[in-house]
Amino acid sequence: MKKVAEDDPRRIVHSFKVGLAITLVSLFYYFDHLYVGFGSSAMWAVLTVIVVIEFSVGATLGKGLNRGLATFLAGTLGFGAHHLANLPGQELQPILLGIFVFILAATVSFIRFFPRMKVRYDYGLLIFMLTFCLISVSGYRDEEVLEMAHKRVSTILIGGFTAIFVCIFICPVWAGEDLHNLVANNLEKLASFLEGFGDEYFRKSSEPESNKASLQVYKNILNSKQSEESLVNFARWEPPHGRFRFRHPWKQYLKIGSLTRQCAYRIEALNGCLNSDVQASPETCGNFREAFIKASSETGKAVKGLASAMRTMTLPSADCPQTTKSKNAADNLKSLLRTGLCEGIDIVEILEVATVASLLLDVLACTEKISESFHELASLAHFKRLEPDEKDGKPDLDKQKQVRQSSNSIASNH
Amino acid sequence: MKKVAEDDPRRIVHSFKVGLAITLVSLFYYFDHLYVGFGSSAMWAVLTVIVVIEFSVGATLGKGLNRGLATFLAGTLGFGAHHLANLPGQELQPILLGIFVFILAATVSFIRFFPRMKVRYDYGLLIFMLTFCLISVSGYRDEEVLEMAHKRVSTILIGGFTAIFVCIFICPVWAGEDLHNLVANNLEKLASFLEGFGDEYFRKSSEPESNKASLQVYKNILNSKQSEESLVNFARWEPPHGRFRFRHPWKQYLKIGSLTRQCAYRIEALNGCLNSDVQASPETCGNFREAFIKASSETGKAVKGLASAMRTMTLPSADCPQTTKSKNAADNLKSLLRTGLCEGIDIVEILEVATVASLLLDVLACTEKISESFHELASLAHFKRLEPDEKDGKPDLDKQKQVRQSSNSIASNH
Repeated sequence: MKKVAEDDPRRIVHSFKVGLAITLVSLFYYFDHLYVGFGSSAMWAVLTVIVVIEFSVGATLGKGLNRGLATFLAGTLGFGAHHLANLPGQELQPILLGIFVFILAATVSFIRFFPRMKVRYDYGLLIFMLTFCLISVSGYRDEEVLEMAHKRVSTILIGGFTAIFVCIFICPVWAGEDLHNLVANNLEKLASFLEGFGDEYFRKSSEPESNKASLQVYKNILNSKQSEESLVNFARWEPPHGRFRFRHPWKQYLKIGSLTRQCAYRIEALNGCLNSDVQASPETCGNFREAFIKASSETGKAVKGLASAMRTMTLPSADCPQTTKSKNAADNLKSLLRTGLCEGIDIVEILEVATVASLLLDVLACTEKISESFHELASLAHFKRLEPDEKDGKPDLDKQKQVRQSSNSIASNH
Repeated sequence: MKKVAEDDPRRIVHSFKVGLAITLVSLFYYFDHLYVGFGSSAMWAVLTVIVVIEFSVGATLGKGLNRGLATFLAGTLGFGAHHLANLPGQELQPILLGIFVFILAATVSFIRFFPRMKVRYDYGLLIFMLTFCLISVSGYRDEEVLEMAHKRVSTILIGGFTAIFVCIFICPVWAGEDLHNLVANNLEKLASFLEGFGDEYFRKSSEPESNKASLQVYKNILNSKQSEESLVNFARWEPPHGRFRFRHPWKQYLKIGSLTRQCAYRIEALNGCLNSDVQASPETCGNFREAFIKASSETGKAVKGLASAMRTMTLPSADCPQTTKSKNAADNLKSLLRTGLCEGIDIVEILEVATVASLLLDVLACTEKISESFHELASLAHFKRLEPDEKDGKPDLDKQKQVRQSSNSIASNH
């Protein structure tokens, strides 16, 4: 229990928010019963709040809009069906209604399998089916149905607005912000693996195991697809907020995320070499070893640069010294590999080291793609360009720290 | 639309099933209104069917049981809260009720963050919160509340049983069966990559691109974690069915699935080498080339053997010729790699080929772990042992084909 709260303190706030919203609406329901207004329809307000309120603003808005729109459309259609079934007379009515309900339920159930509909409108389709059935089969007279529909839509609106209000105006959790931080976090995890890997690979077996555990953080990236996709979906429902304008290119985050995962798959293979039985001895000829460690750590630094540029939403200039250094180090390693490393050491060891080096080069090529994709995002989202005099300084370090703290546990929420 | 239906024809059947269940319950609602029985509570039957019915039996049972149990518990607790709030008098009642609702809603919302609860009881917790609020704040007198609770529980039971009945007795879709086939499918995808990879890697550039596209099917495995986990969850709600007994070791499937994914990550790195600029020429010394192709294809065959043993739920004997062949081929490749391949060819090419070969050996080691894990499953689930005289025959080939056809699209449903 403590862990759940510590992982993300916003969860406690969310629980209180839910309590507040439900209490507000429950009291409305309570007093409505005493002074008679909406009658039993008032319960739909409570039901709506409980079902609609979600952790992030985007999810709540998505569900609320889905519910509102679906109720309205299905109400209209249900009223039409009810009216139509009344025309031929009492005896045919139940048969006609049965046919209507069957056709609509089967069609909507089938539509829910369409991937695009499933992602954005699944909840709306469910509510559409529900409301249509409840209204069309209600068995009341037309006027009663109209009155019932009117009351129900009003109470659903009351419930929906309460949920959305509490969600947006009391410590809001923005899915867009979470997505942004999640992608930046993942980049940082890649970076810390790369920074540490070279040293760890050539570590003398006598030295203590410094950071083998900290190298493993990249494993979270492997299965991040689902949470990224759902965050993008939620983010697309959100209004402009904080640093994110209207029509922020959320889909571009999926691209960066997928490249990050591809990089992580290769790192998984690299990580396997750390535990291989043929280990490179630390004596492997000095210049190769240095080139290897340098390529790994310089690229790590470059990726870390990307991550921090992402956090601060700034665009590093094209001739950024980190990128150049990392490219040079990679080229150096590649040419060493081409000239056949060095002589005088065991062929088995050469082959082993060469394997690891070419895997590493594969990872480095992958990080270049990530960098391209980041620049695309930066231009689409109009990240602000760093002034030359800030280049060597450390802009907004405090802000970065703050953002990082609040975002350590995003992945586990979704 | 055609694609959605062709991917899995069971979707069409499911849509009709939903239509049928809802129509049945809607007519119950309709006639109940005419002849007066449950009153407006009858609508809960419709609501329950629509919300509870799901694609697979496990999911439907899970939701139904969650809903039933949560409604009952919350109803009791809500009645208690309602009664308690009545004791101190009219004025304090709304305040006390507000406090109760707030505490319960906040606590339950927090509990929903616990990973274990989220996985199995998320829906139940939601319904618990909902029912408690509706009943405790209803503002009726105690006797009225009791009657309302009674009606509501009965109608929810009617709705729940209709949904479960239709789901189980009309063309049931078993999540357990789907999980079993999904894991076997994924093994088969690994196998077809391995079978084709050796030839493709040493393909002369003049030859046509035979099966590069068909090699890519393994990509689906990379993101299969989510669907496997949800299928396991659903399967655990299911009663014994078909070939699966009570307490079938569903969790073991997760182990095999996770090893399959680890294998796929390494294959992703291997696949990258197919598109590398330094390609091995087909002239690379004959014996190495042969050993390489043999190791890859023999392992492919061995994995395919596992997949088909999985489908037929038989246990291949320990001295299975496929496994032995595959192990020998891998050992042969390893020793060739240890002795430094062969002389007289370019060092760059040697390094490149050695990289690919050691990645391949990594994959082969991974498939051995899969095989161990499969044998563990086979002994836990009491797979039947193949009779020696069947060993060389092809048991149940027709059945295999049939199963395969029906399971081609499982992954896309979940």
